[in-house]
Amino acid sequence: MPVSRQEFEAVFPKLVDDLKEHAAKYKLPYQAMQWFDKSVNYNTLGGKYNRGISVIDSAQILLDRKLSEDEFFKASILGWMIELLQAFFLVSDDIMDSSKTRRGQPCWYLAPQVGMIAINDAFMLESGIYTLLKKYFRQEKYYVDLLELFHEVTFQTELGQLCDLLTAPEDHVDLDNFSMEKYTFIVIYKTAYYSFYLPVALSLYFTGHASEKNLKAAHDILIPMGEYFQVQDDYLDNFADPSVLGKIGTDIQDNKCSWLVNQALKKCNKEQRQVLEANYGRKDQACEVRIKKLFDDLELQKDYQQYEEKVVGQLRERIANLNESEGLKKGVFEEFLRKIYKRSK
Amino acid sequence: MPVSRQEFEAVFPKLVDDLKEHAAKYKLPYQAMQWFDKSVNYNTLGGKYNRGISVIDSAQILLDRKLSEDEFFKASILGWMIELLQAFFLVSDDIMDSSKTRRGQPCWYLAPQVGMIAINDAFMLESGIYTLLKKYFRQEKYYVDLLELFHEVTFQTELGQLCDLLTAPEDHVDLDNFSMEKYTFIVIYKTAYYSFYLPVALSLYFTGHASEKNLKAAHDILIPMGEYFQVQDDYLDNFADPSVLGKIGTDIQDNKCSWLVNQALKKCNKEQRQVLEANYGRKDQACEVRIKKLFDDLELQKDYQQYEEKVVGQLRERIANLNESEGLKKGVFEEFLRKIYKRSK
Repeated sequence: MPVSRQEFEAVFPKLVDDLKEHAAKYKLPYQAMQWFDKSVNYNTLGGKYNRGISVIDSAQILLDRKLSEDEFFKASILGWMIELLQAFFLVSDDIMDSSKTRRGQPCWYLAPQVGMIAINDAFMLESGIYTLLKKYFRQEKYYVDLLELFHEVTFQTELGQLCDLLTAPEDHVDLDNFSMEKYTFIVIYKTAYYSFYLPVALSLYFTGHASEKNLKAAHDILIPMGEYFQVQDDYLDNFADPSVLGKIGTDIQDNKCSWLVNQALKKCNKEQRQVLEANYGRKDQACEVRIKKLFDDLELQKDYQQYEEKVVGQLRERIANLNESEGLKKGVFEEFLRKIYKRSK
Repeated sequence: MPVSRQEFEAVFPKLVDDLKEHAAKYKLPYQAMQWFDKSVNYNTLGGKYNRGISVIDSAQILLDRKLSEDEFFKASILGWMIELLQAFFLVSDDIMDSSKTRRGQPCWYLAPQVGMIAINDAFMLESGIYTLLKKYFRQEKYYVDLLELFHEVTFQTELGQLCDLLTAPEDHVDLDNFSMEKYTFIVIYKTAYYSFYLPVALSLYFTGHASEKNLKAAHDILIPMGEYFQVQDDYLDNFADPSVLGKIGTDIQDNKCSWLVNQALKKCNKEQRQVLEANYGRKDQACEVRIKKLFDDLELQKDYQQYEEKVVGQLRERIANLNESEGLKKGVFEEFLRKIYKRSK
């Protein structure tokens, strides 16, 4: 039985208490403690928790049984560490991207009184990961591995973010800067490592199955799967029904280095290239309409469907050929794929 | 012989290469690699390197001999990790404080093309610490201790920064918010841990003398010493000769929660309190002059001298009573104190 959002969320208040208790040891003044409490809750709660929950789901599949209460708690902590890592990234990405809202409320840096203090708040969310790791995992023989894993995935995500920021600055359109190779780098590093590889890697350590072979096998399935997920995201941004998607796509106006624009750049003729140059990344609805029309003319929807069938076929093959002799299970990946294949939101 | 700035700086290019090599393993695109190189050099070089160099100086005192070439290199790496940590803080603090210049050049976020990308660049400076720790210290039995030490000191500094930002927002003066207790919290957490305790703690691990007793003894001398250093900084901001100090103090106009304003708040009468309320933290030279006059009237210079004699007396006593039986040496602290006692810049 997959874990519900509610069951996962119920663990969080205890972890907030742990973080506050740690700060209280240093006699953090009251006003700052209230602020920290508010920031942690505001920025970590309210998402779908797919990443965090999949640590627990994967652990159940790997152990092939329901977790004990204590196991559930500890796997949840690992899950919440991913959510803290994501909160750290989102708070800061929203500043870097000048975003306005996040999860239906103002971005933290736009909340009353916050402003650039949000940068330090983001740091404190990251620090929370290591406070919890030390408190709950210090005695495990894989403690150092977890520390190194979080450091590495953090750095990988920062590399992806850097490349994204340099490739697609919001205020300067230069399509020569885009390429499918850069696109692939950005989505793998900015998203796939922390969203797909990290939950399963944590689960492998937690269940005692983190052999080098298993980590590599998981990596070699989950990184392409994370890439596919992001391509889907880009496809849905333009082609999904906004009422189903739950938002109106803004990638075209935001000058995003998306799969669609890179695919368009690959197959457009000279005139179509001029349409792209003249209209992509402009904060103008008429320009956006022209780009949407071009994406239709270029039949990108078809390209996407071909891409999806091909990559899902490859993923299914890799999963089918998976060596389960060291305790890894096909079910872990089947569950991930089930959640995302042909999703509409 | 204390180590020179030049000797220390000569190590850095190799470490930049290490960091770039690590990013190159992930095939970071060229443009992003150039950016990373520039950010690391711009933000880490150009300071006095007091923190970094004192790791090496302390190690020489603890071992009571000149370091071998390899020892010098490894102690320097630890020193550069503090400089990277500081670079991470300074890049982000400058954004949070809307600072304009740093080490005689524009703050990184104000450099051409940078802007808010600086936030991610700050993260990458922090990540550099853990990349270098893994590369050079993974085989040491104190590796986990170093990881935990950096995590803890990072969190402590963030707590200090949070309290500082909440106590003294640049745009909202509220002297009721100030207190000597909050002041002490801010300077200890924001400065003393990473600038004073961290170098010696690293040196103790490096030389094999990091017993619990030695770490605590170092802590109990270096934290008050770091507090003293910051009080001095605040004193010099107002009372030093700008031509000697090398800059013109701006604490009064910047609404800083400094030692001087807290001392003034402690001893002022009703009328003087009104002068403080009406003039502190205003971007106005006439207001600043009134505050400077008040600080003179209150004889804060004398208070500072009394404070200095008292705290230095206590520090000397603690150093004199230091238990050297587990390999800690009085000379480590004498050297620190020598560098800062009665400094004029």
